[in-house]
This record gives sequence, structure tokens and C-alpha cells, in this order.
Amino acid sequence: MITLADPIAHARRCFGDRIAVIDGERVMDYAELGERCDRLAAGLVTLGVRPGDRVALLSANGHRYLEAFTALPASGVVLVPLNTRLAANELAHIVQHSGARVLITDRDPGELASLVDHVIVIPDEYEQLVGAALPQAADTGGTSVSPEDVAAIFYTGGTTGLPKGVMLTHGNLVANAFNKIIACSLSEDDVFLAAPAMFHVAGIAPLTGLTWLGGRTITTPMFDAAVCLDLIAEHRVTFFLPVPTMLASLVAEQRSRPRDVSSLRLLGHAGSPIAAELIRQAHEVFPDSELAQFYGATETSSVVTRLRHEQSTLGSDLAGSCGQPAVGVAVRTVRPDGADCDPGEVGEVLARSNAVTIGYWDDAAATADALRDGWYRTGDLGYLNERNYLFVVDRAKDMIVSGGENVYSVEVEDALYRHPAVAEAAVFGVPDATWGEAVHAMVVPHPGTTVTGEELRTHCRQSIAGYKVPKVIEISTEPLPKSGPGKILKRVLRDRYLGH
Amino acid sequence: MITLADPIAHARRCFGDRIAVIDGERVMDYAELGERCDRLAAGLVTLGVRPGDRVALLSANGHRYLEAFTALPASGVVLVPLNTRLAANELAHIVQHSGARVLITDRDPGELASLVDHVIVIPDEYEQLVGAALPQAADTGGTSVSPEDVAAIFYTGGTTGLPKGVMLTHGNLVANAFNKIIACSLSEDDVFLAAPAMFHVAGIAPLTGLTWLGGRTITTPMFDAAVCLDLIAEHRVTFFLPVPTMLASLVAEQRSRPRDVSSLRLLGHAGSPIAAELIRQAHEVFPDSELAQFYGATETSSVVTRLRHEQSTLGSDLAGSCGQPAVGVAVRTVRPDGADCDPGEVGEVLARSNAVTIGYWDDAAATADALRDGWYRTGDLGYLNERNYLFVVDRAKDMIVSGGENVYSVEVEDALYRHPAVAEAAVFGVPDATWGEAVHAMVVPHPGTTVTGEELRTHCRQSIAGYKVPKVIEISTEPLPKSGPGKILKRVLRDRYLGH
Repeated sequence: MITLADPIAHARRCFGDRIAVIDGERVMDYAELGERCDRLAAGLVTLGVRPGDRVALLSANGHRYLEAFTALPASGVVLVPLNTRLAANELAHIVQHSGARVLITDRDPGELASLVDHVIVIPDEYEQLVGAALPQAADTGGTSVSPEDVAAIFYTGGTTGLPKGVMLTHGNLVANAFNKIIACSLSEDDVFLAAPAMFHVAGIAPLTGLTWLGGRTITTPMFDAAVCLDLIAEHRVTFFLPVPTMLASLVAEQRSRPRDVSSLRLLGHAGSPIAAELIRQAHEVFPDSELAQFYGATETSSVVTRLRHEQSTLGSDLAGSCGQPAVGVAVRTVRPDGADCDPGEVGEVLARSNAVTIGYWDDAAATADALRDGWYRTGDLGYLNERNYLFVVDRAKDMIVSGGENVYSVEVEDALYRHPAVAEAAVFGVPDATWGEAVHAMVVPHPGTTVTGEELRTHCRQSIAGYKVPKVIEISTEPLPKSGPGKILKRVLRDRYLGH
Repeated sequence: MITLADPIAHARRCFGDRIAVIDGERVMDYAELGERCDRLAAGLVTLGVRPGDRVALLSANGHRYLEAFTALPASGVVLVPLNTRLAANELAHIVQHSGARVLITDRDPGELASLVDHVIVIPDEYEQLVGAALPQAADTGGTSVSPEDVAAIFYTGGTTGLPKGVMLTHGNLVANAFNKIIACSLSEDDVFLAAPAMFHVAGIAPLTGLTWLGGRTITTPMFDAAVCLDLIAEHRVTFFLPVPTMLASLVAEQRSRPRDVSSLRLLGHAGSPIAAELIRQAHEVFPDSELAQFYGATETSSVVTRLRHEQSTLGSDLAGSCGQPAVGVAVRTVRPDGADCDPGEVGEVLARSNAVTIGYWDDAAATADALRDGWYRTGDLGYLNERNYLFVVDRAKDMIVSGGENVYSVEVEDALYRHPAVAEAAVFGVPDATWGEAVHAMVVPHPGTTVTGEELRTHCRQSIAGYKVPKVIEISTEPLPKSGPGKILKRVLRDRYLGH
């Protein structure tokens, strides 16, 4: 049976001299990557780490992230990637909850050091470990992992509730690699830009398929539009998967200083709904790239649906869809009683595939709530049309009920984004004595432009029903707060508004 | 978890109006295919067929083959495809051994009728069953199948030993679909010509991936080079996977009457080793096609290794290789004691993947012999080079030991094929008082050409060692006997020679 030990074994045997990863000046082929993975795994054994143990990783993107993601699961160790944007107390909660014995980090571990047996600081201590003489093969374990074993625990949250540890098994991540290779038509010729955070499954999981195929990954410590465009031009990047807020920055940066982006065959986006206007602009600025949308969740190892050639859907009845289920994934929408929705009827989106999590680490209640008869309940609201295209209308809790009418905030945000002055927009419900909830908006204008809330309300009234138009539109010159993958944190905005 | 119920469910929901299969004048979209599969499954339920029961299918290629392969596993029933070239007593053995309760056939069932509860004759009785009113949904079962359930039993043999029933589970055939989509770069734009026998896993298994993607299959009752070339031109076929003997006929036919074969992007071949000369000729005659070799076995659900762009390997150190392991498959070569061979060292070829059989139906001894620690022992002899390219030198039993030297018959056949007069060649060992075994050859010249054994021996001496040159080369004007997939039946030739 196939596990995450297979892709790197395949790569080093079949094409050891192909370049695996470029991280700044560091260029590494698959033979060296495989060798370093062996040494990292062996080094952890010398620290007492055994199969099934958890090792946490708190680091910016880089070649060592790929090494840890490759070496640890292949040797039976469970990787726990940590979101670098979390506060110290949140990180401490995750390290404790996961029971991690070792922390690998590129920063001062602070209080976290007291929660683990060993801290390995990047780069010095890490390189020391990897540089140590490789012990006898017998000592490194020769571990046999099985598809049912947990390979990694990705803690999610930030937009809603407390972090939960999503357990992804070898079988899950292998299935996801296949689904992703097919959904993105990946090949050995692909050059992937790993700019979105690798601590998210969507940022790291594509690397499994690329390793298997012999593709190449370019890393950059964190997303920066100018740096990304430079890297695309320099390394002839073919495949990039930013979130919509990143895409907006890329469009602005490419407009102000155009680079040669002709190598980019697939410009995907994922992580949150996207405004049609942004797709239009991206297509204008990246005319050689196919635009594609991917919809998924950490619990599904990422891809659930995909909308290829998204630019061709603009103005069609598919505009606003996140596409059809990927090959290998099934999707349903259900009513509150669990019955299937009719086409066009909004319900909760469920997904089933071999890449769906087996549950949350040490949280049977959350697992039981999220998984039903093999289906993962996404918590998103959406509908399927007659041809099985999914339209996600909102996170369940982002639906605003105002005056007995349902208002989906994405629709209002889309209207706001169509105004030329709007750079960022967030819409949420606030308590209202008359309407139950009132639609409330926060807007950040593009630098150098000014706009008033009243002008935007007038603008919105031209395209959406009166009850959907925000009662109040606050104008802010500060960027809106965002989670790691760039989702606007509406909960934070709502809490601020309510004075929590 | 994903099973064979998923691809057709996906196809009918996502692209019901796309053409699934064209069988002569019959054109069927995925909506109709799905509907007919529902009706076929429901009809079998009315005959008392229950999940886990076996249903045998004895038929030429056609749309109903795809229907049975789709409907039966999806409803939990186990399909037993029968090789139409077998003798009556061999068929009876398989029907009895599998315990099939129903036989679906397009021919007179003869004695087989007495071995099953029901015979469904194609087309009339089959269409009557499918045309019956669909019972209430509750009556059709709503069966839930699991990845571990057996989906089909493919009986193999013919070239060696008695037929054994290879059990392929839903998980096996789903994994194989993914492996094949990636190995062949399949997409929704592909048009597949199902001319090789659909009763072999290599002939039917590609249809799972095509269904998932929304590709199209063209069926023809049996292989005929002229008919195939006409179909390629008429339907703009993109993907065709004949065995080498078929490829030789296609080359000859296309030379004598060229068709427009420009649509054919991938011309693969599989099933037996191929002579370099044939690759050269095929590349000349099909200049727009990529040539690719696939190596596998029924026990691996087909693909193990693949050599893409095979024409580019001619004259290189990769000539004669069947390529690197496909994504999702691992390959080893081992010594008789089970230790790994060094690069270049010949040993038995082992394969591991999620598509490898769980074993032989009702044959624990054969299962134990074939499967070891998750690895399938192919029985083939070969070596892996430094870059993990596999070179299969022979079936273990096709190796001839003559005067203490090992002679691999494929090497001798390759030499024979390089002579312009040779259409078919088979080389095998015969008992010899002096040498232990002597190398013996059977050759069929191209129509209208003549050649003598002595001329061919002189020709062979130019390219291979003296001890490898056949002691006797028999010239025959009759085609050599072949198994279903077109493998030359050397066992039959050897038995004939020995007067068995």
C-alpha cells in the first residue's frame, strides 16, 4: 500500500538529478532532498523521537519545510505545522494539545521551549542535526508506515472558534496528491511557487504530487507581490495558487511594474470566495494564464471542487461558481434534516473523498459533529446547479438574516468590490432592534482614492436589492485584519464593532 | 471512501450530455449510460442477484461491456469477464470456479447454461431486462459498497499454467484509474479506441478514468487493423493501446492505405515486449503520435511502468526499457533469496501499489506464492538501471539455458524482427542432448516474401552472440497461435514441437 514514503523514494530513484526546490540561493535536487530527509529522520531518532510522536514546526516557508513535511511522515513521525501568525498563548495551546515532543523553529521559541523535550532552531541546530553522520541503517528504524497512520495534524481556526487539530493520514495525503495532479493537470514540467503559507495544507500538499512527478518548487519566506512576480519571471513559474487577497495585490503590482509572466500556465486561487471583478482584472493582467478556482478545506486535504478556465465563465450562468467536484471527490448539499437539496436549493455543503480527514486530534465530539457516514460537513452554505457546479454562498455563520430575508454577505461584498475605489470589503451582520440583524460593511479604499459610505450605498443599490444594501458602511484606511491564508477575519471586525 | 460507484455518479451529474460511448451506430451519453446501468443492476436484482454474487460476461467488445463493468460493481455485484477465445471446457471451469450465478453472453451459451441460474443473451434478453420498468428505488438496494469489496475477477493464464481468478477490489480499480489518468495524461478531451479485448483488465480498466473525466470510448467488436484505422480517422481517436502484434498490423495497414491519423496523440502498447524495429516503423507511420510503452499484469490492474515518448529512446541506453514506475507504483528486482538486486542485475520483478490484487479467488496457495509483504511477484525477469528504468528480459520460464549460458528469448526475437522479411517470430527452448536446451525459433514471413531459416541464422549472427542464434528456425505461413491480448503462445508452440 502506498504512503507518503513513496513519492520521495520514487523521486530520488527515478530522477535524483532533477531540481526539487529552489529557496533563494539554495538549489537542491531530489537526490540531495532525499539524503537530507534520511538524515533529518535519523537525527530525530537520536533525540528519542519514535513513530507516532508529534513534532511541531514553526517556520516561514523554505526548503526545510519541504524536508520536514517529507521526512517526518515517511519515518512514521507526525508533523504538526504551526501558524506563524498566532499569538504566543495560541501556539502554546496547540503544542500542548498535540503533545509535540520536539519543536523545530526559525524563531525564538520563547515559552514554547518549556513545553517540549527538544527545540531545534533553524538554521544552525537544524543543520547540525542533518549534518551529523548518518547512523547505521538499522538504527534509523526502517519504519513501515501504513496508509491509516496519521501523517500530519493541521490546526485550523482563526475565522471561527478555537483551533482544532485536523488529522490527515498517509492515505488522505496520497489521495489528495492524486486528486490535485488531476485537478491541476500537473506534470514533470511544472514549476510551483510556494508563496502562500506552507503551514496550511493548501500551501504544502501540492508538493507531494510535484515530488512524485519530478516537478520543481520555488519557495519564498512569505507572500509579497513584488517578490512573487520577480520569482515567476526568474524561474519561469508555471503554477501558482494564491488566495484572492494575494491575487488582488499581484494584479496591482503587475499593473504598476509588469514582469514577464508568460510562463504561468495556471493561476489558481483558493481559500475564500472571489469577486467577479477581480477575476476580470486578473485575466487582463495575466492574459497567458488560465485562471482556476479551487474550493476546499483543511479537513478535505484541500481540493473539493475546481473551476478550470474560470475567465470563460465570466458573464455566464457559471459566474460565481467554484466549479464541479474534482475527480475523486463527491459533493452533496443537504437540508437541516440531512435530506439532499434540489438543484439550486441552498443547503450545507458536504464532501466525501479518500482525502477527507479521519477526524480531529483528541476531540471526539468535534469529529462526530463534522463527519457523518463518510461525509465531511464543511459548514459552508451553497447550492449545486443542474450540472453539479457548486456555488458557495457563505459560511453558515456569515449569513445575515435581516427582516426575515436571508442576506449572503459575499453578494454584498461583490457589489462593493465592483466600485473602482474599493480595495477591501467585509460585510457582516450586527444586532438591530428593527430588523433583527442589520447588514454592516467595512471598506478600505485604494491608496490615493477617497469614497464615502453614502456613495457606496448608492453604488450598491444599482445592483442588489434594497434589503441587502449595508445600513452602515464604515471607511477605514487600515487594512482589514486577516487570517494566515488571507481570509478577512470578520469575526474580529464584528467583535470590535460590538465592543468585545 | 471512493469506489467504482463514484465515477459514473460523477459523470452523469457533472456532464450527462457528453458522449460516453460510440458502438457502431449506437451513440450514448453519460446520462443514458447511467440510466441503463441503474436498470441493468435493478434487473439483476429481480433475478435474485445479491451483492457479492458473481455474474459472468462472455461477449465481444461493445457498449454493453462498459455497462456491465460499470453497473455490476457499483451495485456490489462481482463481474467475471470471460476470455472469448477459450475452449468450452476452459470456460466451464471458470464459470464453475467463480461460482457465477448468471451468465450474460452474446453467443450460444452451450453447456454453460446448465452451470448458472440464468443466462441473459445479448442483445434481446439483455435489452428486455434493461427496458423493464425501473422498480422503486428501495427495491434496487441502494447498496453501499466499500473499497475492500471485490469488484471483478479477471481470470488469467493461457501463456502459463491454469487460469487463476485475479480479484480486483474497488480500491484496486479506483487506484488504477488514478494511476492511468496520470500515466497517460488523460483528459476530458480524450477519445479512446477500445479495440483490444475488454475481457482483459488492460482493455477495460482505462474506461474508469475516462468516465471520471468525461472522455469518450469508441468500441469495436474485435481488433481489425483496417477497421481500427477507419475508426481513428472517423472519430478523431486520441488514445489507443494495442499490443505489439496489433501494432505491427496497424503499421502494415496504414502503409498500404493511409488514413488521417493526426488526432492520435498517444499510441501506447502493452502486453508483451516489443522489437525496436517495430517502434521505429510505428513512429515513421504515425509521425504525429507519441509512442509509449506500458508494462503491467492483470494482478496489478495493469499499469506498473510506463515509457513515454518511446521513439526518443531508440538508439539510446533506454532502448528496450519499458520505462520507470508509474506515479503510485513501486518496483523492485530481487534475487532468488529475496534481497534487492543491484542496478543492472537481473532478478524477479516485484510491484507494489494500491492497484495490486488482494489475491486469487479461492486459491490461497497461489495467493501466498504471488504476494509477499505487499509486493506482487510478476514472474518476469528484469533489471532496473541507475535511473530506475525497468528492462524486462523475459518471462522467467522463457529464459533458455543453453550450454551454461542464459539466453533471453526476447533478445533473439528482436534480432529476427530486424530482418525485413519477418512478420512474426517466437523463440523458445527445446531439449537438446548436447546443450541442455537449444534455442528454437518459429518465424512467419510477411505475405509475398520468402526467406529461409539459414538466411535468418546468418542475419542473426550479425547482431547477437553465436550461442544465442537459434539452432533451428522453422518457417511457417500460418500465423502463430496467440492468446486473447495477442501474446504469442510459446507454450503451445513448444508443446507442438515436443509432440504433446
